[in-house]
Amino acid sequence: MINKEDLTYLNRAFNLAELGKFTTHPNPNVGCVIVLNKSIVGEGYHKIPGSDHAEICALKLAGKYAKGSTVYVTLEPCSHHGKTPSCAQALINAKVKEVIASAVDPNPLVSGKGFSMLKNAGIKVKYNIMSEKSIKLNLGFFKRMKYGIPWITLKLGSSIDGRTATKKGISKWITSVESRKDVQVLRAKSGAILSSAKTVIEDNSKLTVRWNDLPNNVKLKYSLKEERQPIRIIIDNSNKILNSHDIIKHKGIIFLVRSLNDNLTWPRHVKQIICSTCKKFSKTKTIRTDLFKLMILLGKNEINSVLIESGANLSGSFLLSGLLDEIILYQSPKILGEKGLPLFFLHKSFKLNLSPKFVISDVCRIGEDVRFKLHPYIRKFKIN
Amino acid sequence: MINKEDLTYLNRAFNLAELGKFTTHPNPNVGCVIVLNKSIVGEGYHKIPGSDHAEICALKLAGKYAKGSTVYVTLEPCSHHGKTPSCAQALINAKVKEVIASAVDPNPLVSGKGFSMLKNAGIKVKYNIMSEKSIKLNLGFFKRMKYGIPWITLKLGSSIDGRTATKKGISKWITSVESRKDVQVLRAKSGAILSSAKTVIEDNSKLTVRWNDLPNNVKLKYSLKEERQPIRIIIDNSNKILNSHDIIKHKGIIFLVRSLNDNLTWPRHVKQIICSTCKKFSKTKTIRTDLFKLMILLGKNEINSVLIESGANLSGSFLLSGLLDEIILYQSPKILGEKGLPLFFLHKSFKLNLSPKFVISDVCRIGEDVRFKLHPYIRKFKIN
Repeated sequence: MINKEDLTYLNRAFNLAELGKFTTHPNPNVGCVIVLNKSIVGEGYHKIPGSDHAEICALKLAGKYAKGSTVYVTLEPCSHHGKTPSCAQALINAKVKEVIASAVDPNPLVSGKGFSMLKNAGIKVKYNIMSEKSIKLNLGFFKRMKYGIPWITLKLGSSIDGRTATKKGISKWITSVESRKDVQVLRAKSGAILSSAKTVIEDNSKLTVRWNDLPNNVKLKYSLKEERQPIRIIIDNSNKILNSHDIIKHKGIIFLVRSLNDNLTWPRHVKQIICSTCKKFSKTKTIRTDLFKLMILLGKNEINSVLIESGANLSGSFLLSGLLDEIILYQSPKILGEKGLPLFFLHKSFKLNLSPKFVISDVCRIGEDVRFKLHPYIRKFKIN
Repeated sequence: MINKEDLTYLNRAFNLAELGKFTTHPNPNVGCVIVLNKSIVGEGYHKIPGSDHAEICALKLAGKYAKGSTVYVTLEPCSHHGKTPSCAQALINAKVKEVIASAVDPNPLVSGKGFSMLKNAGIKVKYNIMSEKSIKLNLGFFKRMKYGIPWITLKLGSSIDGRTATKKGISKWITSVESRKDVQVLRAKSGAILSSAKTVIEDNSKLTVRWNDLPNNVKLKYSLKEERQPIRIIIDNSNKILNSHDIIKHKGIIFLVRSLNDNLTWPRHVKQIICSTCKKFSKTKTIRTDLFKLMILLGKNEINSVLIESGANLSGSFLLSGLLDEIILYQSPKILGEKGLPLFFLHKSFKLNLSPKFVISDVCRIGEDVRFKLHPYIRKFKIN
């Protein structure tokens, strides 16, 4: 039986876990609270890959008080010695009495093994408590473990009549300062940011997290010295990105997704990735990347989540691929009219009942704008 | 001094006033509560043009107990004998002690006269209390009294990417049942519904209130036998509407707005209105109605509020005319892509900083959809 006290401690472990949400990638967010005689004797969370796991942080604080304690943890303790020693073994060594855990590890290779180790050592184990919360906190990690591909979010900004730019392609700025700050938060939480060479060159985008532009409430929890830059992925089948482009100057990792390598000399942080193309588009003769294969490739590179920030063509391709897990759309109460650029180029017409359908999971105001969170009406990749 | 008790009674008067919101057009919504020795002795609201005003309803209920009472009323009592006797005179005759009123009558010809009559008869008068509430309840009436033109609302429905129909013009149905029920409420509250001949013919619209389609909470307050049909206004410069069209069959009043009369025989409820045209559009050679002149004409016909339900061309013309007071936009989480029809044909491109800008005054969920209420960033016609 789980009582209210247990839920309170587990909730506290979740609050701790969340503190790592900008820094633990590609590891999951995990928090841990150790309780002895109704007192918290230790607590912690996983902060940066390679650093102590949540359980180890909490055990270190608890010291001798770990013995006979109850341990609350938001994810199954690991059973294997990886970059750090096994957490299950550490809990056994510390002679804890009971472990109350949220979700089971989604990795099919290790799932359940941590709990088995604990049980075999005579420790009482309860789990699957508030597991939706653990999954929600680690959507990308859970999806990659289950399907081998990242959680895929498409970010869009438009006028209230669905236009992303004027006829001439000017989009700076349709949305408000507050919306743009919110996009910085999205970026900071993502494993990678994906765009097309066309968008990067036209908008001269850097696709980096600008710490200074984050909202103050985020800055309080995520200091400048902890700044992590998501991997930048540029779909560039025609090898248009040159080593002289601005985006190359920032030292964060860049993947150039191409159908053929070029012979340029690239700095160390830039990697050319060859991804097979699916077909030639008869009308435009554009070479098109096989987006599913690309996502598999990103999964293999331990990328949990991808934020797509691109133009109407790539947005349309992702939409039609059925790969999108989520759309985040910022709408500004401006009207640009029929000549403005559209949100999606689909290059086909749908009948009304066959058009792509979403569900609004959240809608809120951000500055002068409104932000929608949408997920597909029928999900292709179910996590729970 | 106004105390909390006064505000409570005045609030009750507002709640009563609202009960008439589907039926009083072109009269304003007014409620009245009469209090003697901390007891409500009479109350009422204006229900239908020609029926008793709110004060008269309340006085009839109060009878002899009106003497020495305090009267709470949401709008200045009328001073003139119109379809019904003057309310100010009736309050004087009943020997009430005090009148606590919300807004002053917006009609410049009578504004303040009711209060003067009461004061001259020795009755204590307080007013301008919660007057925003009275104005909000009677936006159309206040606007017409002040500017001679109705309150103008543009109703739109689109996919999340701003498309009102498929390439082939199919729009039934983009939005949800709940949104369409909400549109029925908008219609039921409006003085008139305005569309174009093209839209009426293509969609075979009737532009009527379908009482059966109203939400249940509205049906409870607005019975079928009280049904009022807003005046239907069709802009039809090329005389395309024929007496054989479906819309003509319903007996509610129709104004056909034309540049020239035709020679057809029309039923009594159809009126041809000649409205001068502003100019010929060089490209399309379409004759265009001078929308401002049309609104003046509607004001003269005692229409307080107009709901525009039309296509992208007329929506665009109204947008560019600067006449819109409000846009109500229903967005459905579907995606139709670049070939779908746009919300607005503006026939010109705007620079980003010069594009029409609105303020989101309300956003809420309706069924699967979201409903926006938008008003112009800079209002042309200020009411308060």
